[in-house]
Amino acid sequence: MIIDSHSHVMLPVEQQIELMNEAGINKTILFYTSIHPERVTDFQSFEQEMGKVFKILEGHVNGAEARKKGIEEQMQSIHLYPDRFLAFGSVPIGLNDEETAEWVEKQVIDNGFKGLGEFTLASGQINTLEPVFKSSYEFGYLPIWVHTFHPLGLNDIKELAELAKKYTKVPVIFGHLGGLNWLDTIKITKEISNAYIDVSAFYTTFALSLAMSELPERTLFSSDSPYGDPLLVRMAVERHSSDPYTRERVLGGNIAELLKL
Amino acid sequence: MIIDSHSHVMLPVEQQIELMNEAGINKTILFYTSIHPERVTDFQSFEQEMGKVFKILEGHVNGAEARKKGIEEQMQSIHLYPDRFLAFGSVPIGLNDEETAEWVEKQVIDNGFKGLGEFTLASGQINTLEPVFKSSYEFGYLPIWVHTFHPLGLNDIKELAELAKKYTKVPVIFGHLGGLNWLDTIKITKEISNAYIDVSAFYTTFALSLAMSELPERTLFSSDSPYGDPLLVRMAVERHSSDPYTRERVLGGNIAELLKL
Repeated sequence: MIIDSHSHVMLPVEQQIELMNEAGINKTILFYTSIHPERVTDFQSFEQEMGKVFKILEGHVNGAEARKKGIEEQMQSIHLYPDRFLAFGSVPIGLNDEETAEWVEKQVIDNGFKGLGEFTLASGQINTLEPVFKSSYEFGYLPIWVHTFHPLGLNDIKELAELAKKYTKVPVIFGHLGGLNWLDTIKITKEISNAYIDVSAFYTTFALSLAMSELPERTLFSSDSPYGDPLLVRMAVERHSSDPYTRERVLGGNIAELLKL
Repeated sequence: MIIDSHSHVMLPVEQQIELMNEAGINKTILFYTSIHPERVTDFQSFEQEMGKVFKILEGHVNGAEARKKGIEEQMQSIHLYPDRFLAFGSVPIGLNDEETAEWVEKQVIDNGFKGLGEFTLASGQINTLEPVFKSSYEFGYLPIWVHTFHPLGLNDIKELAELAKKYTKVPVIFGHLGGLNWLDTIKITKEISNAYIDVSAFYTTFALSLAMSELPERTLFSSDSPYGDPLLVRMAVERHSSDPYTRERVLGGNIAELLKL
């Protein structure tokens, strides 16, 4: 089974299904989004949407309202194509342990979502994830998906690694394989058995091939669509993995095992 | 004609030709390299090679000797496949105007190379390129290729834009479309008629599609192999360009015109 382990909700949903069909993807794990650059056609509107992306990436957006609207969109896509979509649930940071657990129960567990994230934090904020790790424990070790490309740096990635070492039963997905720090991220995560590498947004195929050869059972295929192209990323995994076993694991086996699909 | 406008010398040369054939690439413009990560098979050696790449990217490598060896490799590949390869010539920074002109004449013009670069500078060093711009003028406006991904930041990109505005007849190629600053880079270069955008190392297809839609006659296809995959980048250009005219220009027309091929 081919699983795109990280994509955002695209509208209209039929467009997303079409991209999945074209790429031979059976299931996609949907993540919440507050914006839809895929719907924009002119430069100015696109720039505005991207301005919002950059704000999110800088950790400046943490609203509950936008999250709830995003969760509704996830539910709608799942409702329309229940065999094709799963989801991870977004969680605000800055809540205390109890509030976080309450949010996770209501907005993640009750909706049937399979994990927590994406977390897009400013540099220096990784420790604000601690209540999320505690909630993961409480609800059966839900995987936590963290954006580790820019603006996060190597120190943030090391802090995330420390959290993963502290909560050894929580699967931690290092989203976008550490961005500019892909080589260090691969080295660091290799030594942590509950750390996983997401390949989306790779900018050199060496990062992709190295992740797969070093962590064949903990590297996860994803397109990050609409920011990436599912077909091209699938082909990249196929072309830059060294054997059929690794290919099968990366394209679906690893995430299926992780989420008990 | 399909032209990969930026790749490094790969060894053995037959492997590079094979990748070009597979991707339907007629000609590749070769850039010098002092390392060959494509030849490495184990993690430790790969890490060593990458350590050298990171040093180069930080602007710490500027030796004449390594350059001359690299130029020899370029000449060998061209000698073996004269119809398939062209080259840009590497130039050390830190020489005065006269020394730079002397180097360009001997190591670039006399070798039949078509442009200057790749320049991989530390942040804050863009102005050291001024003698190179002067040499470009002297030898008939040779295009200058500058790495603008990390570690360069937006200020460096703006400084490069200022140089391009000062030397209006020198084509300046913004390599890797500004990296993290792709949106600003596209906006800045759009207003400078002698500025060009190289698409290699894009990490979101939005950067690629936007460059092509905003600068259809100044966006250049390249794979940056061995760091990128020629077939996948060609497919990305084809899938994310909006019309056949743009596709033809980006895949070869623009660089052919620029180099008078």
